Amino acid sequence: MTDKLIIFDTTLRDGEQSPGASMTRDEKLRIARQLERLKVDVIEAGFAASSNGDFECIQAIARTVKDSTVCSLARANDRDIARAAEALADSQNARIHLFIATSPLHMEKKLRMTPEEVFEQARLSTRFARNLRDDIEFSAEDGYRSDIDFLARVCEAVIKEGATTINIPDTVGYGIPELYGNFIKTLREKVPDSDKAVWSVHCHNDLGMAVANSLAGVKVGGARQVECTINGLGERAGNCSLEEVVMAVKTRKDYFGLQVGIDTTQILAASKLVSSTTGFVVQPNKAVVGANAFAHASGIHQDGVLKARDTYEIMRAEDVGWSANKIVLGKLSGRNAFKQRLQELGVELESEAETLAAFSRFKELADRKSEIFDEDILALVSSGVGLAEHEQYGFVSLSQHSETGERPKADIVFTAGGKEVRSSAEGNGPVDASLRAIEAHVKSGAEMTLYSVNAINGSTDAQGEVTVRLQSGGHVVNGSGADPDIIVASAKAYLSALNRLHHGSDRVAAQG
Amino acid sequence: MTDKLIIFDTTLRDGEQSPGASMTRDEKLRIARQLERLKVDVIEAGFAASSNGDFECIQAIARTVKDSTVCSLARANDRDIARAAEALADSQNARIHLFIATSPLHMEKKLRMTPEEVFEQARLSTRFARNLRDDIEFSAEDGYRSDIDFLARVCEAVIKEGATTINIPDTVGYGIPELYGNFIKTLREKVPDSDKAVWSVHCHNDLGMAVANSLAGVKVGGARQVECTINGLGERAGNCSLEEVVMAVKTRKDYFGLQVGIDTTQILAASKLVSSTTGFVVQPNKAVVGANAFAHASGIHQDGVLKARDTYEIMRAEDVGWSANKIVLGKLSGRNAFKQRLQELGVELESEAETLAAFSRFKELADRKSEIFDEDILALVSSGVGLAEHEQYGFVSLSQHSETGERPKADIVFTAGGKEVRSSAEGNGPVDASLRAIEAHVKSGAEMTLYSVNAINGSTDAQGEVTVRLQSGGHVVNGSGADPDIIVASAKAYLSALNRLHHGSDRVAAQG
Repeated sequence: MTDKLIIFDTTLRDGEQSPGASMTRDEKLRIARQLERLKVDVIEAGFAASSNGDFECIQAIARTVKDSTVCSLARANDRDIARAAEALADSQNARIHLFIATSPLHMEKKLRMTPEEVFEQARLSTRFARNLRDDIEFSAEDGYRSDIDFLARVCEAVIKEGATTINIPDTVGYGIPELYGNFIKTLREKVPDSDKAVWSVHCHNDLGMAVANSLAGVKVGGARQVECTINGLGERAGNCSLEEVVMAVKTRKDYFGLQVGIDTTQILAASKLVSSTTGFVVQPNKAVVGANAFAHASGIHQDGVLKARDTYEIMRAEDVGWSANKIVLGKLSGRNAFKQRLQELGVELESEAETLAAFSRFKELADRKSEIFDEDILALVSSGVGLAEHEQYGFVSLSQHSETGERPKADIVFTAGGKEVRSSAEGNGPVDASLRAIEAHVKSGAEMTLYSVNAINGSTDAQGEVTVRLQSGGHVVNGSGADPDIIVASAKAYLSALNRLHHGSDRVAAQG
Repeated sequence: MTDKLIIFDTTLRDGEQSPGASMTRDEKLRIARQLERLKVDVIEAGFAASSNGDFECIQAIARTVKDSTVCSLARANDRDIARAAEALADSQNARIHLFIATSPLHMEKKLRMTPEEVFEQARLSTRFARNLRDDIEFSAEDGYRSDIDFLARVCEAVIKEGATTINIPDTVGYGIPELYGNFIKTLREKVPDSDKAVWSVHCHNDLGMAVANSLAGVKVGGARQVECTINGLGERAGNCSLEEVVMAVKTRKDYFGLQVGIDTTQILAASKLVSSTTGFVVQPNKAVVGANAFAHASGIHQDGVLKARDTYEIMRAEDVGWSANKIVLGKLSGRNAFKQRLQELGVELESEAETLAAFSRFKELADRKSEIFDEDILALVSSGVGLAEHEQYGFVSLSQHSETGERPKADIVFTAGGKEVRSSAEGNGPVDASLRAIEAHVKSGAEMTLYSVNAINGSTDAQGEVTVRLQSGGHVVNGSGADPDIIVASAKAYLSALNRLHHGSDRVAAQG
């Protein structure tokens, strides 16, 4: 058996399915490029048949990413598979990932099919897919709750039809390492020619054991692919977290004896990018990427820890991209310093014009704020996106006032369809007043289900990055905005969310 | 072997050691009462010898809590142990928890002691402790990286001296379930009379496997106590998370076959209380207590999930305290409705006067805001604490203005040592200006290392709850404030943090 562990990232597919984590095409492209820099082996870019938007995202990523295999999910039917192949047509290293549920509960309640119908459909669609591409992954949805003998028959059949990877998800996060590892082992033993495919694990974190279950699937079960997401993003309690599984395999090489191709120094940048894009915060005590994960990164210099760091730390913070010195640029920094820092942060802007625009926002910020942190740069780069000229709504200016005993009031000027609009409102607080002023004109009727402020560097002498999540008629969108004035950041975030609602698209839900 | 699994919560000790998570006596008492309602078996209330403040906290908790055993940590020396016993003197069910490191690295670098010296000290201090109380826990710090034969000798000796619980921590989070479980198993086999003590596990989450490691220690190793914290709070990547370990044992009773005494419906309230007290956010994709942990709790009603919830959910959200209907009170709600809701939320105020004060803040809020959510109630209850009359600083009123193109400006009135102070400042944003106005008078010189806004109900028609963390001369304190006006909430939070800095105390760091 090979000692290479394949890292399959599904942040852009299973991660994005998390309610409120939907991303635009540009955001997905930026994350895909970061995943490529991270050197993940396979990037699952989306689910082509679910919507035209998703199709276009996969196509764009397939055209851009060169070093990682690009993958699209598809239900096990010819239409979905053809659509996936079409989206991936321009990629040399592409994978079609088809799935069908094999557990009694899912077959009966969700698919309303008999096991024999499922067996046939799995077999025939694998054949169909294999005629379109060589790299075919088959997933047995809710595989871990399936009858193992039936599941073995299905796996045997799809390997015969040419599936090159077989994935056995713990779709509902029900596994225990010992049980899940042995399930994969027994299953592989039951399948003739099991060596002809790479076995893969895909674990959810409902009981907090996705990482341990995945690793048991690898160590005990003999799987050689782990499906995971940045920050463990994903529906409900999320997926197996890429950064944890990778650092466990690296730190405990004595036990696992496996190679992973990941450039771990890109982990933190990937984590921050995914967190700021989706508005899903990373808790301070999150392993590897949480602000407190390493003692010295928390800003506290405890005597004992500094004396002998290895008494309490088994990894080095630098190895996953933490660096002590975070103040990088100021008012006098030039365009080259700015561009170089962007590069170091893993940000690639599409064109010289975009870089220039970002630099001008940087200079504007530097006039108002003496120290510019990495987080500020990432925020100003992402705040430029989504407020481009072709957007429906754009921020112009804001004036607001609050005073104890009076009702807070805001006047805002913004563009709507190219025209300037002026609107005023009162509210419970100045943020509330500002958003009411926008809503008074736009009348979206959307419900706000999240309002969050990301602490940028923990100081108020910093930009605030606000994320708002709006829900309207089944659509859920995020908007974000950054500004040293938290009220302005909130208004920008609200306008950005409205822009996305304006573009809204329907999509089919898939589960893994 | 018994089938009862003892849940030992160390949120108030190991959790509080997390940089930035320090709590006041009142906060610790409130959390201890919630842990008692949760029916945890043992509450580790602090580390008596570390500071006078911690001593007083343990004493207050030992006097208040009746249904759970109350425990204090102590280094393995007579002074620490006597201090722990003193703090616990008024409690009927008290435990002294003594620890000493047994790994070569820790003995050499941290303790600068030989193994034989460590052995003798462990033995003699256990004897000393057992003469003071009957319930004695011994922890071998960094036990999992210790020489197993040496560790077995130490365990044998302390059991002979009367230790009733033996805890083997994975202090640096280095374990893998299979290895850690077998380590505990082998260790127990090497110790004569191992049945005379309850074996305990204490795992850290650096590689994301604290829960799985703890459960392997139980299932494979035969441990019958798990040490854990609410939300997995703790240094670096934190400790084993109570809610995950408990729900795993309950959900997979078929595998574990163990009883836990926890009232799981109190889990969410405990999680929110710890999160709002420490300012440590819970990420949306956190298992069990994250906002997205249950599909239906995320506010999204996906057709497939609603049709057959058990196809994707292995636990019921209600079982851990999530409830769908969160709007509870309004302007017309009376004092009895308010008191009843407080009770349902697990909030017990000290006196009738406190309840009256909270009710008057509630009415004031209801005048400004039509729907009062559970989170609002929790926020207004906690915002009342720390702004009492005996505090150094108190908020009076604020006026602020920001306008595009101008520099934001704030005028604040607050009390300092009982006198009203008026101060003005400009800043990068209105929050910055308000805090600068306070700082202009107070001149604390503290560095702000965290500024976070908790989304209350995701709507801006809601109170904002702000947490700020200040660092000054080695002290780290949190302050929080709630108000529908985010600028006011920020000012209140800053003043609350300054109050704590004013009370600052020295403490000795311990590790587990």
